[in-house]
Amino acid sequence: MGNGVVPMSKVQSHIESQRKQYEEELFEFLAIPSVSAQTKHDGDVARAADWVLKQLTQAGLTAELIKTNGHPLVYAEWLGAKGAPTILFYGHYDVQPPEPLDLWHSPPFEPTVRDGNVYARGATDDKGQMFTHIKAVEAWRRTEGALPTNVKFLIEGEEEVGSQAITSYLKSNREKLKCDQVVVSDSSQLAPGAPAITYGLRGLAYFEIRVQGPARDLHSGTFGGSVRNPGIALAKILASLIDDEGRIQVPGFYDDVRPLTDDERREFRRLPFDTERYRKELHVSALAGEAGFSTLERKWARPTCDIHGLMGGYQGEGAKTVLPAFAAAKVSFRLVPNQHPGVIAESFREHVSRHTPSGVTSSVTTFQGSEAVLVPWEGEGFRAAVRAIEAGFGTPPVFIREGGSIPIVLDFKRQLDVDSLLLGWGLPDDNAHAPNEKFHLADFHRGIQTTARLLQELSLPSNDRKEA
Amino acid sequence: MGNGVVPMSKVQSHIESQRKQYEEELFEFLAIPSVSAQTKHDGDVARAADWVLKQLTQAGLTAELIKTNGHPLVYAEWLGAKGAPTILFYGHYDVQPPEPLDLWHSPPFEPTVRDGNVYARGATDDKGQMFTHIKAVEAWRRTEGALPTNVKFLIEGEEEVGSQAITSYLKSNREKLKCDQVVVSDSSQLAPGAPAITYGLRGLAYFEIRVQGPARDLHSGTFGGSVRNPGIALAKILASLIDDEGRIQVPGFYDDVRPLTDDERREFRRLPFDTERYRKELHVSALAGEAGFSTLERKWARPTCDIHGLMGGYQGEGAKTVLPAFAAAKVSFRLVPNQHPGVIAESFREHVSRHTPSGVTSSVTTFQGSEAVLVPWEGEGFRAAVRAIEAGFGTPPVFIREGGSIPIVLDFKRQLDVDSLLLGWGLPDDNAHAPNEKFHLADFHRGIQTTARLLQELSLPSNDRKEA
Repeated sequence: MGNGVVPMSKVQSHIESQRKQYEEELFEFLAIPSVSAQTKHDGDVARAADWVLKQLTQAGLTAELIKTNGHPLVYAEWLGAKGAPTILFYGHYDVQPPEPLDLWHSPPFEPTVRDGNVYARGATDDKGQMFTHIKAVEAWRRTEGALPTNVKFLIEGEEEVGSQAITSYLKSNREKLKCDQVVVSDSSQLAPGAPAITYGLRGLAYFEIRVQGPARDLHSGTFGGSVRNPGIALAKILASLIDDEGRIQVPGFYDDVRPLTDDERREFRRLPFDTERYRKELHVSALAGEAGFSTLERKWARPTCDIHGLMGGYQGEGAKTVLPAFAAAKVSFRLVPNQHPGVIAESFREHVSRHTPSGVTSSVTTFQGSEAVLVPWEGEGFRAAVRAIEAGFGTPPVFIREGGSIPIVLDFKRQLDVDSLLLGWGLPDDNAHAPNEKFHLADFHRGIQTTARLLQELSLPSNDRKEA
Repeated sequence: MGNGVVPMSKVQSHIESQRKQYEEELFEFLAIPSVSAQTKHDGDVARAADWVLKQLTQAGLTAELIKTNGHPLVYAEWLGAKGAPTILFYGHYDVQPPEPLDLWHSPPFEPTVRDGNVYARGATDDKGQMFTHIKAVEAWRRTEGALPTNVKFLIEGEEEVGSQAITSYLKSNREKLKCDQVVVSDSSQLAPGAPAITYGLRGLAYFEIRVQGPARDLHSGTFGGSVRNPGIALAKILASLIDDEGRIQVPGFYDDVRPLTDDERREFRRLPFDTERYRKELHVSALAGEAGFSTLERKWARPTCDIHGLMGGYQGEGAKTVLPAFAAAKVSFRLVPNQHPGVIAESFREHVSRHTPSGVTSSVTTFQGSEAVLVPWEGEGFRAAVRAIEAGFGTPPVFIREGGSIPIVLDFKRQLDVDSLLLGWGLPDDNAHAPNEKFHLADFHRGIQTTARLLQELSLPSNDRKEA
């Protein structure tokens, strides 16, 4: 083709013809309980890595398994498009813990189709979305033989537990991972029919607080009133973290927060987001959050404090009059641009220590820390993605921020000096991190088509791209 | 015998000779996991009732199993001592849940002897202590044939879950249960070598608070900041229950509290209680509690608030960024004389409701409610118990109050108009309601000797008693 554009009809038709096959393979992938946080699943996590390795090999790439101190990385490449840009696809094959199990309508690792969705842990986060990239590359290789761009894949197994291995691998393998554009599909559309490019992500600082009282559980009748109850001490510490107006009380917490610009606030207001529908969908009587900000601002661009788990004492049926030896909570802060997780961790530890009463001791464990990310709206990659989504979804994308964190995006910028395209095929109600996680199968197939198209769009020389 | 006193040497020797046999039977009893709070143990609870029935029959009493809506009661009697007083022994064969299991050094239902103690759930609370009464009666029957008093036994299987069945049985069987004195061994000595008669018990009002947020668990990145976190809402509610000086903040909570008399405070100060040793034994850096009261006052005579369990969200290993759909806590108040659990329950519900923020709903379940008890210090029964303990333990008892609750004692007073002798053979560090519950076997045998002696002391006409 004169301008380097390969006709895509064969690729498109091939993808269309493989729908059933792609779904079957996806279900096989989803059936592997690769829960990176739970050591009992270490074998399953390894199995998932092998599965990804096999898939990338079958897609026509040169793939390797990279052993780490934690869960393995999978790397693959095809570099046969001389002179064309190089695209690095990032994703993760590990999943969140499935608990609480009793709330799933079908078992989390037995993929089940209902109403056009596949239900399984990892369906959308991130196995299903990541898999669209593999299938798009495979479709090009099987039909055209060559890809329009060079591609690299770096798939990790620790995204849900802090991404340690990939972070250090990135640092020591800058040359190998060199690329012109990173593509990540680990986010969501704004709503059904409103595909999105995500240009901002929040960071995360995640902790466990443990409050230790007496050396052993005590009879609350015999001892109650004479020793500090660790549960009450913990409740006081937790209650001190945030005021009734939703403002976080850790000293200095907001010092580095980059405020929303007037432009951004205006853009947010324009987005097709129905607050009342959102409230109803969550079945809450009222939305809540930091005073003075809209729901989208609270979700996307303001830092937050959440409790993820409460532990301690008797959790069974009925009454047990125990004065528990300890109580604990998992707590995190979502961070926004310019906040630093290390600084937050230090202030948080000091705050917890200052709010720990006599007669108990507290300790803080840090699980994760990552900064927020903002991707520039301009650039050839961004425009190529707009065109690919318009082709794959039949409508142009909206530009949104996301409340979640994909820490590796920051590392790609720092280590490789390259921006990431955050192209989410999921939906806001996909129940990522919750029971009954799902992925709309129509979006799964659109994701494959869009990724295949994206490779072509990214292959165009920049002046062609501007014209296309 | 001229004054009605039967020589006790044969009974004493018999008890002495049966030590090994008694221990083996006790271990058999302790091996039955009769956890009344957990429905999976319903069969075991029934088995424990049958076991008690068999024991009472073998001891020479006429025994019957009484079916109820809950766990069965065991009743037994021997009424052959014409003209002598009638003693009703009360106890319970159910036990607290054994959780957390990983903290037990030997399995909770495999009685294990270490350092002269038997370790097992229920060792002291109340199987081991209650069993001393059965063996004492059996010893009289096997040696003398007759008992010096009439005896009745009423043993329940729901003491740890609210004593519902026995309470209604008491109301409808006043004539059958008529007696001159109730004897209960479900409390403790003050310290090793300081046997005690307990004259006061606290009451209890036990609740579960559940705070419901969104209909399902949510991804805390995607949704955090825009909906109320149920864990934070619960922490705020719990923190509002008690101030930093240990004073309960539920409105009107102290209105009905009967203050300690100056005499009582003086007596408390005289008791051989080593506060520093107590602190060290619990491995806490400082004792705590309501400002203005001593440790014994806080434990025995002041109302308290304790958290027994915290639940909600992710409790596993590592990090899970879930915004949990609900959070819950088990909370109780120990009550002192003149406080009423019904009144407290109502104020508590109102308080919780008033402190529940928008965007979540709270609900309160009541599990138990009982009033505090004070037993008069004077009376023939009290003096007989002093003499029996002096004989059985080699030292006279101290008079103490206890922080725990034995709700049925109040019902005996109300329904039968009879006082209870609370004679504890246990020790404060027996780990009742905690892992590694134990019973000092020497105290087990002293308890049998003391009970056997008590029957004789209670049989004396009142003027003989005064002389003895």
